[in-house]
Amino acid sequence: MLGGENNVAKVTFDISMSLDGFITGPNDSVEQGLGEGGEQLHRWLYDLDSWRERHGLDGGESTRDAEILDEAFRNVGAVVIGRRMFDIAEEEWGDNPPFHVPVFIVTHRPRQTIVKEGGTSYIFVTEGVEAASEQARAAAGDKDISIGGGADIIQQFLKAGMVDELQIHIVPLLLGSGTRLFEQPGLEQVKLERARVVDSPTVTHVKYRVVR
Amino acid sequence: MLGGENNVAKVTFDISMSLDGFITGPNDSVEQGLGEGGEQLHRWLYDLDSWRERHGLDGGESTRDAEILDEAFRNVGAVVIGRRMFDIAEEEWGDNPPFHVPVFIVTHRPRQTIVKEGGTSYIFVTEGVEAASEQARAAAGDKDISIGGGADIIQQFLKAGMVDELQIHIVPLLLGSGTRLFEQPGLEQVKLERARVVDSPTVTHVKYRVVR
Repeated sequence: MLGGENNVAKVTFDISMSLDGFITGPNDSVEQGLGEGGEQLHRWLYDLDSWRERHGLDGGESTRDAEILDEAFRNVGAVVIGRRMFDIAEEEWGDNPPFHVPVFIVTHRPRQTIVKEGGTSYIFVTEGVEAASEQARAAAGDKDISIGGGADIIQQFLKAGMVDELQIHIVPLLLGSGTRLFEQPGLEQVKLERARVVDSPTVTHVKYRVVR
Repeated sequence: MLGGENNVAKVTFDISMSLDGFITGPNDSVEQGLGEGGEQLHRWLYDLDSWRERHGLDGGESTRDAEILDEAFRNVGAVVIGRRMFDIAEEEWGDNPPFHVPVFIVTHRPRQTIVKEGGTSYIFVTEGVEAASEQARAAAGDKDISIGGGADIIQQFLKAGMVDELQIHIVPLLLGSGTRLFEQPGLEQVKLERARVVDSPTVTHVKYRVVR
């Protein structure tokens, strides 16, 4: 197992990105999910034992990639995502979603909390990313908050100075178009320093700390 | 020294890119060079002994980054660049440019070859990237061809299937805008596989092979 980091609660995000900077392929939508070719971004995950365990599946490979994934989510006490991502993925996540913690969804439309199996609940926050962050912090206690995406929410958190650490899983893939992870004006204010790089044949994991 | 690769002559490019995908900052121009903040992309180079040697300077640090740089250019027999890059950098490159091999400049305007000190000559090619590639191959013999940039020429070579290997030096930096390395339609046809990853505190070197 990886480890040895101290346990100050952090706000983080972990996301798979193509070498040309996309986190979905072209024409991503509620109907098309990650867009054309976008599922290739996540192919490195599906055979990992730690990915399968979170999805209620047995077996899988115990590799360094699996450790990276386990490490990324082991200490997460709450998740924040955007409404569009929720709409796209809710059905796929099913009755026992892979989060196993409270998930705060930033939206404009008020909606009742949905309690799922396995520890996941969906809580809808209509007051913006700062409010979502505060509610997630209260739910997470001394554990980390993970910003699940999409790109818009991640960039809002970055620009608001509310991210401590980010890990990007760079996939050797050119998608050509789709949704870029980094696109909004203002991101140039965010200062990064490299925390760690781990690579495998299918993906390179680059982790950065945000410098205050 | 790194090494151990076979000596089949390759077409490669090596370029520094910000984490958000830019190879210049905003407002790059003949007057402004790499644009606002763009010089940060190359800061990792300036203290390396191998960079200094190519620029006719003594001293510098002999680090893994220095080896990576030396390896990238040791076997280069010719360079191809775009006209805009030439216009931006010609003055900075001076009388004894850091190439020390023939440099083919893809341009629309015919111009006489310029012979500089130290083995560099500037040869202007008006018939497009394929012609530049052929002339560079003839000049390079059994050595590699390096595509020096900018982004437009690199993408033209990639889309034409004329690149064998690429190495991107990912700098922990968000530039927010500028010139993106990967932006042109058609790049999604290029298939990559990871060849090697080397990291240091200031830069992560990711090398890919183009899969035919």
